[in-house]
This record gives sequence, structure tokens and C-alpha cells, in this order.
Amino acid sequence: MTLRIAILGAGPSGLAQLRAFESARLAGLEDMPEIVCFEKQNDLGGMWNYTWRTGLDKNGEPVHGSMYRYLWSNGPKECLEFADYSFEEHFGRAIPSYPPREVLKNYIIGRVDKDNLRQYIRFESPAHWVSFDEQSQTFCVTVMDYKAGQLKTEEFDFVVVATGHFSTPNTPYFPGLERFPGRVLHAHDFRDALEFKGKDLLLVGSSYSAEDIGTQCYKYGAKSVTVSYRSNPMGYDWPTGFNEVPMLERLEGNVAHFQDGISKPVDAIILCTGYQHHFPFLPDELRLQTNNRLYPLGIYKGVFWEANPRLIYLGMQDQYFTFNMFDAQAWYARDVMLGRIPLPDAAAMQADIGHWRDREEALKTAGEEIDFQAAYIRDLMDQTDYPEFGVEQQGELFKQWKQHKKADIMGYRNQSYASTLTGTMAPPLPAPWLEILDDSLETFLDNDFQRAAALTETV
Amino acid sequence: MTLRIAILGAGPSGLAQLRAFESARLAGLEDMPEIVCFEKQNDLGGMWNYTWRTGLDKNGEPVHGSMYRYLWSNGPKECLEFADYSFEEHFGRAIPSYPPREVLKNYIIGRVDKDNLRQYIRFESPAHWVSFDEQSQTFCVTVMDYKAGQLKTEEFDFVVVATGHFSTPNTPYFPGLERFPGRVLHAHDFRDALEFKGKDLLLVGSSYSAEDIGTQCYKYGAKSVTVSYRSNPMGYDWPTGFNEVPMLERLEGNVAHFQDGISKPVDAIILCTGYQHHFPFLPDELRLQTNNRLYPLGIYKGVFWEANPRLIYLGMQDQYFTFNMFDAQAWYARDVMLGRIPLPDAAAMQADIGHWRDREEALKTAGEEIDFQAAYIRDLMDQTDYPEFGVEQQGELFKQWKQHKKADIMGYRNQSYASTLTGTMAPPLPAPWLEILDDSLETFLDNDFQRAAALTETV
Repeated sequence: MTLRIAILGAGPSGLAQLRAFESARLAGLEDMPEIVCFEKQNDLGGMWNYTWRTGLDKNGEPVHGSMYRYLWSNGPKECLEFADYSFEEHFGRAIPSYPPREVLKNYIIGRVDKDNLRQYIRFESPAHWVSFDEQSQTFCVTVMDYKAGQLKTEEFDFVVVATGHFSTPNTPYFPGLERFPGRVLHAHDFRDALEFKGKDLLLVGSSYSAEDIGTQCYKYGAKSVTVSYRSNPMGYDWPTGFNEVPMLERLEGNVAHFQDGISKPVDAIILCTGYQHHFPFLPDELRLQTNNRLYPLGIYKGVFWEANPRLIYLGMQDQYFTFNMFDAQAWYARDVMLGRIPLPDAAAMQADIGHWRDREEALKTAGEEIDFQAAYIRDLMDQTDYPEFGVEQQGELFKQWKQHKKADIMGYRNQSYASTLTGTMAPPLPAPWLEILDDSLETFLDNDFQRAAALTETV
Repeated sequence: MTLRIAILGAGPSGLAQLRAFESARLAGLEDMPEIVCFEKQNDLGGMWNYTWRTGLDKNGEPVHGSMYRYLWSNGPKECLEFADYSFEEHFGRAIPSYPPREVLKNYIIGRVDKDNLRQYIRFESPAHWVSFDEQSQTFCVTVMDYKAGQLKTEEFDFVVVATGHFSTPNTPYFPGLERFPGRVLHAHDFRDALEFKGKDLLLVGSSYSAEDIGTQCYKYGAKSVTVSYRSNPMGYDWPTGFNEVPMLERLEGNVAHFQDGISKPVDAIILCTGYQHHFPFLPDELRLQTNNRLYPLGIYKGVFWEANPRLIYLGMQDQYFTFNMFDAQAWYARDVMLGRIPLPDAAAMQADIGHWRDREEALKTAGEEIDFQAAYIRDLMDQTDYPEFGVEQQGELFKQWKQHKKADIMGYRNQSYASTLTGTMAPPLPAPWLEILDDSLETFLDNDFQRAAALTETV
């Protein structure tokens, strides 16, 4: 009987799973499984599918997207290149290392549309419930089809959870928030930096959201940016108007009071306090519960739900690597689903998870973390036909990226890196990133990057 | 066997149901059912339980509350008085007709705490799924208990859906919203008018949200308020800076273009475009689907799910009457659940619904609508022991309220009305509403209303 596979989510992880099977089909797989990919939004791309909406979407479902206008990649594109679809293949030429969001979305969609993978996707169809029947060893997946206004339940042999973990905000309370006379939002709901032009802005948190929203609001004219950290400041060489302060203690009116007795009046507060792994459609016994870390417990090879490996999680790790890590996971998951890779017994799975977790817990530096995640991906890749892409080389690029950020947080996006697939060095941006205010795909691709690069060299 | 009843939601409707049973118990009911009230939030009060949060709550659930700081009742409190618990009983004296939100919440909670009804309520426990078993004629209610981090399923004989219908925004798209350089929000996410001080504000919609958010933003210093209506302007005598314009067509940058060729640059956009009846925890065959109207189809007596009257909906109508209407419904529902009122057969239920719906469809004026809803409540009240409260008299107060609004939209809250329960005329506010910027419970109740009234009369 034909295998039936449900993929929940059509973002980079879910699309990786679709692409993995399509790749097998093109390579001659005869018993192609029946695949249905259920997507909450009305287009693919997941997080990369920008929406102006916040809170709930038009169907009353929580908005998936946490991305905002004027967002540019905060890591080199050379570190997220698909091994089977280079940037050069998609754009027909080399482009700079740090493209804006819309350009990356275009790249993601390019690989999907090339193979006509949309046929597998049902839009506006979030999963509402998944249950597993021990007897039949199948899952019942109940989905709300908002186009039809109906709940629909179907049976599947495998369920791939690719719903992401940067959509459900973790939003702590600070005394006085309920009386703060201005906007309070989580980074998830941040959309347009121009709203904060001329304002004194407080960001709570010191991870990627605070770093990127802070630099962006500075770029678009915030009067000041105060960043409140729990443990350590980010410690970058911030421009004038930027300030890192200890943890927020409370608000009195519009005055923020921090540990160590520092205080400052602010106009708006953005809680850059991270996200929760949130799977309201899964019963307790199938639900991954973890914080955001490189090696969550409970998933063998970072993918297979230990207690029931027919349930597969993609991309649930804290991430240096992204698109190509999801690919490596999806190819491996595909081969397990197709019976090409046997899973070991429960004890062996547990031992393997323990081994990786021990390594993860011993990590001390960002460099070690990068090497760890590269080794994890290498372990997956070596057992499938996912094409070689030089994951260790990309790890070295990540280390350079860290150094470039340290050297110039407002200018690191002006750097270029060479593709580990094609060897091509990326051309520079046509102007310093801080000066480019138009982030549209059209404007970006209108540039003659090679000519701009040649001119730069002449100068 | 003891009846088991699940109440979903601990807002005014759910609490009405708890109070209805408690009232029967105090009157000597021997077979008190086992009642469990499941509440998503961490306190009772439903919509009246203000939260600074928007979008998703701390558990990742959609935020219930649509209320905002500085919100005052937009109808006379004399029209929402509980028949069994007067404002004078709660506050120990007469208070003005238009109290701020916190004072009304205090009143709601007073009746609950008087009878120790919190014992029935499980907080942070939203219903995730309800199913009905034909064989056993019972419901399985699956609830996420966020305090325990577990899903729990229990069986019930009746389920009372009291989750409200002003929580899930209806948010239409207008071309250009995705590039508007400022904040775009639905009224559901509006929290603090001070955010819009000095701003040119666009409100889309012409119902209560637009009216109240507009007047409030004006009160707290918005530079201008432009209200865009679909069919008809509200037509009030607005102060300078207020403007009603036809429907929004599109945005170009920060310029809003309306029908009839009008355009205006704006700083922020609030979509006051209403709410959806949204019950993601109910299967198709149990789910009420309706727009916001005085007599939705499918619920007998506006309460009992026609296809399965063991499922009960409270407060799902468009509302002039609120708290005491929910009470009237809850008392009636209680008596049906206790077998004191028999339900007629399906044909008779359908005929009754049709009769009311026909009347509803013939309504032409607001006055007729008010009389219709009063008659609906009277029909329910007359068959239970819910105390007489003069619903028709309250209807007349609503008609006065409409006239007072028409005469002075920024000053109608300075009016006073007499309680239909106690006959007491409400004292006036200590100052014109437009001048009272502090809406806290403490400040409000610190007033010596009688003395203020005497002074006013002397002047």
C-alpha cells in the first residue's frame, strides 16, 4: 500500500521534506508516497512570507510570521545555500552575501516552483489535532480547511512537524507594563521601524531579535535604542544613541528602571524575549517540549520522536545553519520513511541522543557551537544522497561572520563570502547596507552587481 | 447520577451560568450538578479583565481581551445591572451612570466572590477540543491545562459555550497595507491612546470600536481622527479634527485614498472592522456560524444548539443588553439542564427560531431593535425565577442613551439615569468625562459623588 505522509507547514523545513521526496522521485523512486502538506498561511515560505498582520490572521489563527519590513539576512547567504539549488542557478548570476528578505523568499520559492511542488500543498489549512492509533499504527490528522469552512480528518503513516519555533512569543511580565503610556509589543509583532522614528526605544533581550530590530530602528531614525540584557550585554561597538543596560526591573509611568539603579524614560517597549516551542495540535505523548537549544532531548538524530519515530520534527534546534540543515534532516527522514535507513532499537536511539547531548552541554564558545552543528549535519548527510555542500567550510564562514559582526555591527553586511557550492565570491552591495533604505526585490535585483563591484575596485 | 456541566469561559456569560446554579442551590436545589468552568486567562472577568498583552498570551493562546486603558462604559450601567445584585449593594452607595472599566470589572467580580464561585473555575485552561458521543449522549471536553502543561479530557452531560464573540478580529486587507510606513492594527490590539498622541489617525469602520477608540484618542491628544465608513457615517457632531470619509480604497505610502477621490496622509491605521464568531475547539456539526446580529440562526431561544440542545451558547447575539441578558439566558439554560423546563420537539424549536428571526429581519430602527431584544429577554425571564428588573424600562433608557449620544457624542457620559432596580438616580461624574484622564478604580471611588452632586446643584 502506498505510504501516506502529512507534512505540517510549508516553510523552509516543510518544503525541504517535499523536495527530498521529489528528488527521490526524479532519481527513479517507484513507490512515491502520497504526500499532503498542510499550510496555515495562504502562500508558502513560512517565516519568509512577510505579512503586515499581527496577532491573528484573517482566519483567526495566530499569525505565523515574525519578520518585518526592511529585514535583511543577518547571516551570509553562503551559509544557507541549498546543496541542490545554488543562488547562481536561481538568479542567473552572483548576488551579494546579505540579501533582503524578499530576495531570499524568492530563492526558496524558486526551488519549489521549478519542480511544481505546490500541487502537494493545501493552503489556509492549519492542523488542529493529531492523534496516533496504536492498533493501526497510523495518525489521524485533523485540519481546519478555512477555504471550505470545514474540519477534515485524514489518516497518515507518518507526520512531519515542520511548523517552526519562532512564531509563538515568550512574553514575560514586568511590573508596570500594564500602565506604560505607549506601545508594548513582542518582537513577533514588530513590523515597521518607521513607527519608531524619533522615539526613545527600549528593547528587552540581547539575542538576534534585539540585535536586529535595534540596528534596524537605528537605521530608520529611532532617537535612541536602549537594550536591556539579562546576563551579558551583546557588547558590540554600538553607534551613538545605542546603550546596553542591565535587566529591566519595573516601569513607573514611562520611566524604565533597570538593575543597578539606572533609569530612563522611553516611548515604546519591544520585548525581544524569544519564542516558545508550541504545538497545540499535539497530544502530550507526541509533543516536543524544549527550550531553544542545539540538541533538544527526545528526538533521535534531532528528528525522530523517540517515543514514536513515525512522528518527525524538522528544524526544532537552535540554529546557526538553517535551510541546508533542514534539507539534511528531510533527506534523512525521507530515507527512514522509505525504509532505506533502518532505525535502531530504543536503547540505541537513547544512547545516541545522550552522546550528542553530552557533546552539546560541553560546548563553550560560539566557534564550538558552529562546529557541533556542522558535525550534526555531516552525520546526517553522510547517510543520504543529499549533495555535498561543504558544511565544514560554511562553518568557517560562520566564524568569519561572527568576527565581522564583532568588528562592525552596523557594517558587517557589507562583507562578501565565496559560495561553497560554486566557489564564486559574492559581489559587494551597491552601497553600504546602512545607506540602503529600499529593501524591495525589484530595486535589489535591478543592480548590476558585477559592474558595481568593478567600479568599487577602480575606486 | 449527578449531572456534569462544563462551562467554557469565566466572563460575564460563563459567570452568569455559575451564578444561576448557585442561586438554585441557595434556593434549596438538592441535586446540584458538578460544574467545571474552564477559563483561558488567569483571572475571571473575560473581556473586562484588561491585559497589556496583544496577539498571544503568555501560554501562546490568542489574547482574549479587546479592552484598552481609559475605557469607560459606553452605555449606562443602569442597563446592565444584575437583577440579583445591584450596583448599590456592591458599592454601598450610588455611583455615576458611566463608570470606567475597572469599576465594572469590580462589580462583576463582587457577585462572584460573594458566593465563592471561584472554586468552580480552572484558570489557564482553554478548551482545545469538544466532541459528542451519540451512544453515551455525553461530551468529551479536552482542555489544555497550562499550569500542569498537560491536556486533560473529561466527560460532561452539557457544555455551555461562553467564550464570547469579540475576541477574534475580522481584519480585511486593503491594497498598500503591506507597505504602510507606520503601525497597522485591529481594534482588538488597541491598548493605549497615548501611543497616538499628536498623530494623524485613520480608523476604518463605523461601529462601536471606531466610535469609542476615536473619541478616546481625541481625548488623549491625537492630532486628527479620520473615520472611514462603508455604508453610512456615524453622523455625530464631532469636534474639530474629526472627519468622516467614505470607504478606504488603498494606501500609497502613508497616504490613504478613499472612495470619491478624497485622500489624506496618516501616521497609523486602526481597523475597527469587527469580530468573528470563532470556535476552533468545536467540530463542524456543533459550531455556530453567524455574523454579529440580534437573532442568529441555529440556536433555540438564542441559546440551545438546535441540532444538539445539550450544547448551549450564551451571549452570542449582537448586544444592546449585556450582563442581565446573559443572566436571563443562563437562568433559562439552567432550568432546561435541570429538567425544569422541557424543550419542545425539533419542529417546534425550528418554528420558534423562525418566528423570532422574521421579527428581527423586519426591524428598521435602533428603537425597534432595543424593543426586540427586550422582548427576547422578557420571553426568557418569564419562565424562570430570575428576578424582575424592568427590562422594558431599561429599553427606554437605551433609547434616551441613543438621543444623548446624538446630542453630544463627547459628552453623553455626563448624563445620569435611575436604576430600574432601586429607583435611585445616579449621581453625576465629578467633572465632565472629557476632562477626567485618570480612569483608575481608586481615583473613581475616592470621589464623594453625593457631595459633588450637591455642589453641582448649588452652582
